[in-house]
Amino acid sequence: MSRFFSQIPQIIYEGPDSKNPLAFKYYNPKHVIMGKTMVEHLPFAMAWWHNLCAEGTDMFGVGTADKSFGAPRNTMAHARAKVDAGFEFMQKLGIPYFCFHDVDLIPEGETITETNARLDEISDYIKEKMDETGIKCLWGTANMFTNPRFMNGAGSTNSADVYCFAAAQIKKALDITVKLGGKGYVFWGGREGYETLLNTDVLFEQENIASLMKMAVEYGRSIGFKGDFLIEPKPKEPMKHQYDFDAATAIGFLRQYGLDKDFKMNIEANHATLAGHTFQHELRISAINGMLGSIDANQGDILLGWDTDEFPFNVYDTTLCMYEVLKAGGIKGGFNFDSKTRRPSNTKEDMFYSYILGMDAFALGLIKAAALIEDGRLDAFVKERYESFESPIGKKIRENTATLAELALHAEQLGNPPSPSSGKQEYLECILNQILFSQN
Amino acid sequence: MSRFFSQIPQIIYEGPDSKNPLAFKYYNPKHVIMGKTMVEHLPFAMAWWHNLCAEGTDMFGVGTADKSFGAPRNTMAHARAKVDAGFEFMQKLGIPYFCFHDVDLIPEGETITETNARLDEISDYIKEKMDETGIKCLWGTANMFTNPRFMNGAGSTNSADVYCFAAAQIKKALDITVKLGGKGYVFWGGREGYETLLNTDVLFEQENIASLMKMAVEYGRSIGFKGDFLIEPKPKEPMKHQYDFDAATAIGFLRQYGLDKDFKMNIEANHATLAGHTFQHELRISAINGMLGSIDANQGDILLGWDTDEFPFNVYDTTLCMYEVLKAGGIKGGFNFDSKTRRPSNTKEDMFYSYILGMDAFALGLIKAAALIEDGRLDAFVKERYESFESPIGKKIRENTATLAELALHAEQLGNPPSPSSGKQEYLECILNQILFSQN
Amino acid sequence: MSRFFSQIPQIIYEGPDSKNPLAFKYYNPKHVIMGKTMVEHLPFAMAWWHNLCAEGTDMFGVGTADKSFGAPRNTMAHARAKVDAGFEFMQKLGIPYFCFHDVDLIPEGETITETNARLDEISDYIKEKMDETGIKCLWGTANMFTNPRFMNGAGSTNSADVYCFAAAQIKKALDITVKLGGKGYVFWGGREGYETLLNTDVLFEQENIASLMKMAVEYGRSIGFKGDFLIEPKPKEPMKHQYDFDAATAIGFLRQYGLDKDFKMNIEANHATLAGHTFQHELRISAINGMLGSIDANQGDILLGWDTDEFPFNVYDTTLCMYEVLKAGGIKGGFNFDSKTRRPSNTKEDMFYSYILGMDAFALGLIKAAALIEDGRLDAFVKERYESFESPIGKKIRENTATLAELALHAEQLGNPPSPSSGKQEYLECILNQILFSQN
Amino acid sequence: MSRFFSQIPQIIYEGPDSKNPLAFKYYNPKHVIMGKTMVEHLPFAMAWWHNLCAEGTDMFGVGTADKSFGAPRNTMAHARAKVDAGFEFMQKLGIPYFCFHDVDLIPEGETITETNARLDEISDYIKEKMDETGIKCLWGTANMFTNPRFMNGAGSTNSADVYCFAAAQIKKALDITVKLGGKGYVFWGGREGYETLLNTDVLFEQENIASLMKMAVEYGRSIGFKGDFLIEPKPKEPMKHQYDFDAATAIGFLRQYGLDKDFKMNIEANHATLAGHTFQHELRISAINGMLGSIDANQGDILLGWDTDEFPFNVYDTTLCMYEVLKAGGIKGGFNFDSKTRRPSNTKEDMFYSYILGMDAFALGLIKAAALIEDGRLDAFVKERYESFESPIGKKIRENTATLAELALHAEQLGNPPSPSSGKQEYLECILNQILFSQN
Repeated sequence: MSRFFSQIPQIIYEGPDSKNPLAFKYYNPKHVIMGKTMVEHLPFAMAWWHNLCAEGTDMFGVGTADKSFGAPRNTMAHARAKVDAGFEFMQKLGIPYFCFHDVDLIPEGETITETNARLDEISDYIKEKMDETGIKCLWGTANMFTNPRFMNGAGSTNSADVYCFAAAQIKKALDITVKLGGKGYVFWGGREGYETLLNTDVLFEQENIASLMKMAVEYGRSIGFKGDFLIEPKPKEPMKHQYDFDAATAIGFLRQYGLDKDFKMNIEANHATLAGHTFQHELRISAINGMLGSIDANQGDILLGWDTDEFPFNVYDTTLCMYEVLKAGGIKGGFNFDSKTRRPSNTKEDMFYSYILGMDAFALGLIKAAALIEDGRLDAFVKERYESFESPIGKKIRENTATLAELALHAEQLGNPPSPSSGKQEYLECILNQILFSQN
Repeated sequence: MSRFFSQIPQIIYEGPDSKNPLAFKYYNPKHVIMGKTMVEHLPFAMAWWHNLCAEGTDMFGVGTADKSFGAPRNTMAHARAKVDAGFEFMQKLGIPYFCFHDVDLIPEGETITETNARLDEISDYIKEKMDETGIKCLWGTANMFTNPRFMNGAGSTNSADVYCFAAAQIKKALDITVKLGGKGYVFWGGREGYETLLNTDVLFEQENIASLMKMAVEYGRSIGFKGDFLIEPKPKEPMKHQYDFDAATAIGFLRQYGLDKDFKMNIEANHATLAGHTFQHELRISAINGMLGSIDANQGDILLGWDTDEFPFNVYDTTLCMYEVLKAGGIKGGFNFDSKTRRPSNTKEDMFYSYILGMDAFALGLIKAAALIEDGRLDAFVKERYESFESPIGKKIRENTATLAELALHAEQLGNPPSPSSGKQEYLECILNQILFSQN
Repeated sequence: MSRFFSQIPQIIYEGPDSKNPLAFKYYNPKHVIMGKTMVEHLPFAMAWWHNLCAEGTDMFGVGTADKSFGAPRNTMAHARAKVDAGFEFMQKLGIPYFCFHDVDLIPEGETITETNARLDEISDYIKEKMDETGIKCLWGTANMFTNPRFMNGAGSTNSADVYCFAAAQIKKALDITVKLGGKGYVFWGGREGYETLLNTDVLFEQENIASLMKMAVEYGRSIGFKGDFLIEPKPKEPMKHQYDFDAATAIGFLRQYGLDKDFKMNIEANHATLAGHTFQHELRISAINGMLGSIDANQGDILLGWDTDEFPFNVYDTTLCMYEVLKAGGIKGGFNFDSKTRRPSNTKEDMFYSYILGMDAFALGLIKAAALIEDGRLDAFVKERYESFESPIGKKIRENTATLAELALHAEQLGNPPSPSSGKQEYLECILNQILFSQN
Repeated sequence: MSRFFSQIPQIIYEGPDSKNPLAFKYYNPKHVIMGKTMVEHLPFAMAWWHNLCAEGTDMFGVGTADKSFGAPRNTMAHARAKVDAGFEFMQKLGIPYFCFHDVDLIPEGETITETNARLDEISDYIKEKMDETGIKCLWGTANMFTNPRFMNGAGSTNSADVYCFAAAQIKKALDITVKLGGKGYVFWGGREGYETLLNTDVLFEQENIASLMKMAVEYGRSIGFKGDFLIEPKPKEPMKHQYDFDAATAIGFLRQYGLDKDFKMNIEANHATLAGHTFQHELRISAINGMLGSIDANQGDILLGWDTDEFPFNVYDTTLCMYEVLKAGGIKGGFNFDSKTRRPSNTKEDMFYSYILGMDAFALGLIKAAALIEDGRLDAFVKERYESFESPIGKKIRENTATLAELALHAEQLGNPPSPSSGKQEYLECILNQILFSQN
């Protein structure tokens, strides 16, 4: 069975004191935290594109890693080799899910018909592997940004014909997603935006995107897709501006066009920071709107202005992520590693170190987030902080039964302005550090 | 009449070739552009706070300019001197409007009752001056960010009592705005946000803000306020995160809470760039949502990460602003100079140079925007760019009568993917430069 | 003795499992790490300005905290009360050092003579307190940015007279620093830069700054100052551009003007990130140039574009800081908390939580940095990584005895290009996390 | 002769009122400004890589433009076709110079020997074309960032063998540059930096870079290269940090290693802004250090965090650039369009619109900069601004003959602090706008 990663052992949990670099220190799928196992809390997914396709190319350099897996590129043999390698990889790490774009799976054909035939073939093969291994599909999507035809957008293109090509890709990607039992279907609008407002009819483009999404929902439901449709916000890159700038913008768009029942957010950590937000912020905004669907687990370098898609290792970030997730009652989707090894990390071992880094960082984040909740001091502080709204006047405010005049009168009667109460941020940060660095 | 600025002549239009630094080069209120006079296109407003109150303080230095206007600070005499100086200033420049926060006008009293009495007194005096001069009020607002009681927010405060103080201030600011015939009432939520999510219940705070706005609308309408309520988005500063991050976020919020009929956007150039957007972007987003209410005319330094509130001088920006405004059919509100002279520009002359700079920059922007529209090449290009949506399949897409399957079939039948058509950005930029630097 | 903080207990080390919020979890001055006690590794200092003067003012709000210490502001009684409060504070926390600007200590007088007399008086009083308590002065400096006379710079001013006022302040601040036995003297050039290049002669201004520094060195040495002069780089804020942009720029300036023997860097974490660097980067650049003098211990919010001066709590950052410090053989200066409690953290307890947060974060960083070094895997990897330079051709390169032609010939003879070796970033990050989150 | 661009007319000057999009509005090579022709002021260069090689690829999409020029890719026939196309292009536009990387010219061979033979062949062919057309070489360079062998750096690599490959490429690129009479030789250190400090010996790497530069200088001078070596600073991208962060850093490095006699700066507008500086700042810093060598003429999008390499069109920027250049007495190097058409601008016409946009923007910038100087108000203001340094005490400061005590005494004697004088930024910006938008 082991063809590509024979030098790599099965990755197992050895605990924080293990010095073995090819072992988990924190991720133990069977550990029970707050009533669920780690694997239930953390349905991790491998991203087909980064792990099986990307070879380390950047804007100034060609690939450094070899992802041929022994097969000639641009062939169905290569497509199958990637399936083999991918499942071997997921099994070695115990990753229960994968995510894919249509054109990650196969070399695009000359025509849609040819491409679709290849997708049928490869998805048959993937399905076999899924049945063999129990590995599942988290979500699928259509890549509507790489092909030059989408240079002016897909749903936001200026060409009605290109729009139809986008529709064709979505239709087939939905077919495959349903065939593979995917839990979700993602829209990432990498070309849905503008390079310059001088040539762009923003309203027209946004209406067209909404129409395309509506048609996708109708089609998806018609073929039995029960999962969530997901928007993955990103503010910019590759475009100068992308319409799904952040969670608040995307949620507003979905409500405006009546799509909010079928769609949720797929929040990516690095996209959050590119939009000027913390990862936690985007999760919170999604959660309080009932829109937290799935997570792209990576991290950016906040001093850099592009999507670095680093493997997540900052345990502050993973803890606060898991804190939001636990508070939201868990996540219906999963944690997809939309992360790539650094360009100079070009060996097979590096692929494993990277996933171990990321999975352990989230496992530790889960442990710490649960400890924060069990500790209870954060929750208690927040509860106490707002308790003045339990007073009669507070209650009227909360229940929307007050008038401005009535509240103004209350203020006048108070006479002296109330002393504000400390937000105690540093005290709360002390608690956070104390729990983060206490024994696990 | 001339008490404070006796050394400054009446500022008049002398034309682009004038070397007189105290004359307009482009702003001539009576010039007619596209059927309206400049003063109709550009209802400029003086910001009471920057022009009559702020003395150049920054986080590392005390004031450098003297705004005592000959009166002892923190007295009603000073408040009256500011009124005198402000009207003299506006008359010298031919500025038809002003904007104010409640506490710009008077020193805050020990109690609300005292403060309100002072507001009554000063607004009587302002009204007299308005009647004398014909100068009008663009908008009013309540300052709910300077007083320490608002350190945890106003509508988003954790204290029900502080919330009532906010209500009291809004009520009075609405009273004064109506009394002075203000066209709008603004909410800038400088403390409506969070310093840390560790201590914040975002959903609760947002609901409370919405309630406060609803009460304000009800009260305002009950006392005869017919103008627009306005949200002025800003992403951050002073808070780590402010809820009205940008236009898309604020518009989504208004729709969610049913406030979109009464509210519009007050877009500030420097707030746009702090949110990672161009000024033009925020104007466009507001306009296509029917939400372009008013404008805060300044500019930021995009290499600096805080609100520099510079007087606008970049004619690219003012041209593209006026392009959006003209396309939107003009603006119901006005152009408020939420701008301050640089700290080392500490003389009375500098106050005039600054307004001349800003008013001329917008006047020139108006001239150039009209020229862009009259030239017609941009519009023609955009129209042609989307013309494929006039085809039968395009029409179905536009009219929402297509299905995914039908579009996919169309794509399959096309066979070869369509060649994308050039966005011609550099060509359009050539046109922009050609018109900007042609003779005026 | 306890006048101001009587409700606060003496802060002592209770260990990571203590739930007492007013105790150290990691900072135990007597713990020995790599042969030195914690207090020797971490000579912490209290910043007079933030802790004893600043009341939470920001650009949009007045103070929220009370630092009157029971005395009327702008009096020598207040100045003395601050001394009392400061020493009480430092004693409660076991902080061995303080840092000051001249005008932190006293209200500035009408004339230099008056100001200097006050400085003499207060420094006598401080000296008494130092003798009583054993607390020492880390460094002093002159505030040449708050007074309006410095609005165009101090050493970079356009006014020869203002330049003389800067000289006078430096002279007196040096006198006081020597009197109090300060280990260093700092230049932070908050107004040494420009608002616009349109009015600035950069070369002239830089030469004048260099001259002022030379005179300061000569004067300082003449009165027996043996410590380091320090430049504290900051890229911008309050000015649009400051000349001491970052460590590399400041070091280049010092070498250019022959000041590099007397000066070192005072690296501030938040200034590093404002310049687009990590804190670790600025420390490394300083260290490899023999210029690591002292540290301003705080942290910024990388999503915000101004100096937030937060109390440091990110243990990744403090660990990597201490890693650089330990690698550099320790630090001659100290760790000054140029940090302020958040504006809503306005109680006396918050002052203590903040210092506990910061001191513990650095103590834990020290523990973890030592563990990283003792673990040895990072060092071993780096050593191995460059080992090809131990080869004959590598040796010639290192020793500067090779020629281009000779190296080119070597390459040609190699024929096939060498395979690059993995940088193993994720593996190293695994080690970092493993050590950070292992038991302490 | 016209093979590739037969549909494009010869681009000539038609003046600002021409509506012909394929004509210059401002660039007239023979116009005389301040005693020199435009072509002498503005020695423009075509960048081989962007114009003849790059097809619009970005991190999320493949090429959209066709640069095959009718030949099969990766052949010497293609290399020759690019030469033909390039010279035709430069002739059509009247561009007098070109710039190249070694591997822009030919497909890299299996071995250095093969690559070098191809470089010999193509440079013979280029030389023929140069002789025919009079077009010259501005500068050459070696691409030491695309090949995977440089993934850990070239001069900063951890591999002595890779270092030799870098040396071999530099040697050959210098040979070709000398053969083609290039005026300069550029080092852009795209991989000279680090991804993580965890694996990097910064001092060792910087010393090795310096050694490589020294060897390059020695070799270059030995084969008769009389031009400038140039460092092109860039702060980051593709690496997390690049050593040549900005002009100040690079100049400091050159002085530290004794390279400042042979090297100057090649300043790129977009790299300046990525470093947090204005383009004008980097030019000024270079100029006052006698280091302004050459210019990469492009512009970035300051709201985006990566190198967008846009064709320059902002006339504020080009004016302030030319202002610095004229003040510095002109430039020894030239203006290389390190600029690329936007990805959706994928036609041959777009290549021409782009260069017309850029050349016209610089021509107009030159006209306006000369007008600013001839107007004289900026210069007069700056001169007057510093005139206090003509006083006796000012003279002593300027001549370095003062002491701190003497200056302090002067300040004490002044008694009252001097009133600061306004920096008049807005007045100067009025002048700038007035001249920019006056008739040309």
